[in-house]
Amino acid sequence: MVRVAIDVLLKDEILDPQGQAIERALPQLGFEGVRDVRVGKHVELDLPDGDDLDERVHAMADQLLANPVIETFTYRVLGEGEGREGHDAR
Amino acid sequence: MVRVAIDVLLKDEILDPQGQAIERALPQLGFEGVRDVRVGKHVELDLPDGDDLDERVHAMADQLLANPVIETFTYRVLGEGEGREGHDAR
Repeated sequence: MVRVAIDVLLKDEILDPQGQAIERALPQLGFEGVRDVRVGKHVELDLPDGDDLDERVHAMADQLLANPVIETFTYRVLGEGEGREGHDAR
Repeated sequence: MVRVAIDVLLKDEILDPQGQAIERALPQLGFEGVRDVRVGKHVELDLPDGDDLDERVHAMADQLLANPVIETFTYRVLGEGEGREGHDAR
């Protein structure tokens, strides 16, 4: 099994109101100079390894995880200590 | 400026119904053997570089992007060709 992280974002040409809201809120919290905030979905999952991993991840994303009309995605295979097990808020 | 990706996930002990829904839907689409699906938020943003980058990202996440009671986050600095510019659905 490999653990894969898939990140789904709205395409650049699609308005991202959630990103804009964060961008407007940050200066009020004292964080200046933050630009171009985009918000999307992060999915982590275990799936069987294999030569067709890339193909399967693309198919899953196209069919279920992302809306290809308005969204794009990237994915990466997580290493040891990354992802769920490695999550730590501090 | 550096581009940072922040991934927010529910803590392991918190039930993730969206992840469960995806895990149940995948076999019906022909994707067998997918386990431990977790769904969260993916945020990308540009912010000024500096020695206190780590501190600022943690503060932003704790104050605005994640709910520390039920969520954890990880972040990474995106390199050239990663992130928004590198997003491509195929």
